[in-house]
Amino acid sequence: MTVDACKAIGIIDSGVGGLTVAQEIYRQLPRESTVFFGDTARFPYGSRSPEEVRRYVLEIIDFLESQEIKLLVVACNSATAAGLSHYQERCSIPVVGVIEPGVRAALAYTRNRRIGVIGTVGTINSSAYERTLKRYDPSITVISKACPLFVLLVENDLIDTPEAELVAREYLSPFQEADIDTLILGCTHYPLMSDLIQSVVGPGVKLVSSAQETAREVKEILTRRNLLYPLEDNKPSHRFFVSGKASFFQEIGTRIAGFPIKPYQVLLDS
Amino acid sequence: MTVDACKAIGIIDSGVGGLTVAQEIYRQLPRESTVFFGDTARFPYGSRSPEEVRRYVLEIIDFLESQEIKLLVVACNSATAAGLSHYQERCSIPVVGVIEPGVRAALAYTRNRRIGVIGTVGTINSSAYERTLKRYDPSITVISKACPLFVLLVENDLIDTPEAELVAREYLSPFQEADIDTLILGCTHYPLMSDLIQSVVGPGVKLVSSAQETAREVKEILTRRNLLYPLEDNKPSHRFFVSGKASFFQEIGTRIAGFPIKPYQVLLDS
Repeated sequence: MTVDACKAIGIIDSGVGGLTVAQEIYRQLPRESTVFFGDTARFPYGSRSPEEVRRYVLEIIDFLESQEIKLLVVACNSATAAGLSHYQERCSIPVVGVIEPGVRAALAYTRNRRIGVIGTVGTINSSAYERTLKRYDPSITVISKACPLFVLLVENDLIDTPEAELVAREYLSPFQEADIDTLILGCTHYPLMSDLIQSVVGPGVKLVSSAQETAREVKEILTRRNLLYPLEDNKPSHRFFVSGKASFFQEIGTRIAGFPIKPYQVLLDS
Repeated sequence: MTVDACKAIGIIDSGVGGLTVAQEIYRQLPRESTVFFGDTARFPYGSRSPEEVRRYVLEIIDFLESQEIKLLVVACNSATAAGLSHYQERCSIPVVGVIEPGVRAALAYTRNRRIGVIGTVGTINSSAYERTLKRYDPSITVISKACPLFVLLVENDLIDTPEAELVAREYLSPFQEADIDTLILGCTHYPLMSDLIQSVVGPGVKLVSSAQETAREVKEILTRRNLLYPLEDNKPSHRFFVSGKASFFQEIGTRIAGFPIKPYQVLLDS
């Protein structure tokens, strides 16, 4: 057993979307403790420049590294797209993004090798999904579309409204003609509105998110490095920090996580 | 080895004074990690009502319990005096105050059984030191004096000024006639101005603080409960949270702790 095995898994997101990844980590690694940071004061990342996003993420990494973590999950596509390798260079611990796992999940499913990708402006402009898909299989056809309003609909609890449906039909219309069989939800917020997305693209399109595959990668790395939590009778703790108001995150986060969470607001640049 | 042994020691203070206790814990327990909370936004506690102080401390306890701790040190005399038993009832982990250890240190030293006590208005009004001293030895003579400006001098980095000397002479004059051989520094800030205090009361009076004895009690409890950090090669981490501005705490805290600290501001009631 190594000393670091007792430490927690750090998880970064711009808001609540990363909780969809956190939830899958809780499920696949039920003994592990976590520290989640939601940068809600600077949300959304998707419309910011890569440089700006990287600066924010590196600031959060400083904070999370001071909180005793053994592995870091960048549970945000925009943050991963803006510079996963920068974070990996900076950290002495393993850093896992969500793009590569999402790509693997999509490739495992597709039969006709026509894959759609939706994400924030930042993620789509980075072409990170397209590049990664083609690195695995150059013959894949990729159809991408930025859906900037989706994260706002999720963070403002507006996914069950008529305006959300209108926006979804508008954003997703390219895919109705494109004959894709797989659609990558390239933003950790989108699984929270997957019912609406599925109803628009139709039952013939498989929606894949990176949550499951990301959690599996985390488990693999911890296993390989002998970093799994070593004791059987652990009651893991899940800590939550946000840069914005704690009350809102508590409400929506409790719903997503499936258990009562108590986030604390921390000021990073004070 | 128990699961909880990997957890940190929580330390509460109203400001930076508790760092004098933290420092002694670092020294006596070099393998243990700690989480320090300085309630700098609501400092000073010494002039507040016991009810108010208890409410604040219980709020901080909620936060620290969510941060994976195995034992809590209330490293603040005003907070200890305001209701140590309340905190102990609330917590499932051991809670150690600073008054009882300070009393034991004084009793171990005094020869003439005349002991002085200085502290905040809250601590002195609570008579906690006097009661505890007399519980151990009813024949002890106790001379107490509230010194409310002392914490402000320390927190504002004013201890080397002429006005500090003036204030010290005024506060400590009762002890010059009182023939005490021991003076309890009944506030964790006072060790930071012990040179000035010593020069006023004279070399014949032994100044005792609770830091050493408190750290020893922490060590005893962890040993007895099989909660000492179990691995030899641990590099302990020391986390710092404050309720006020982080920058000021960082500066003065780094000086007191003796190594660079990086505090984060957390908003408890957001």
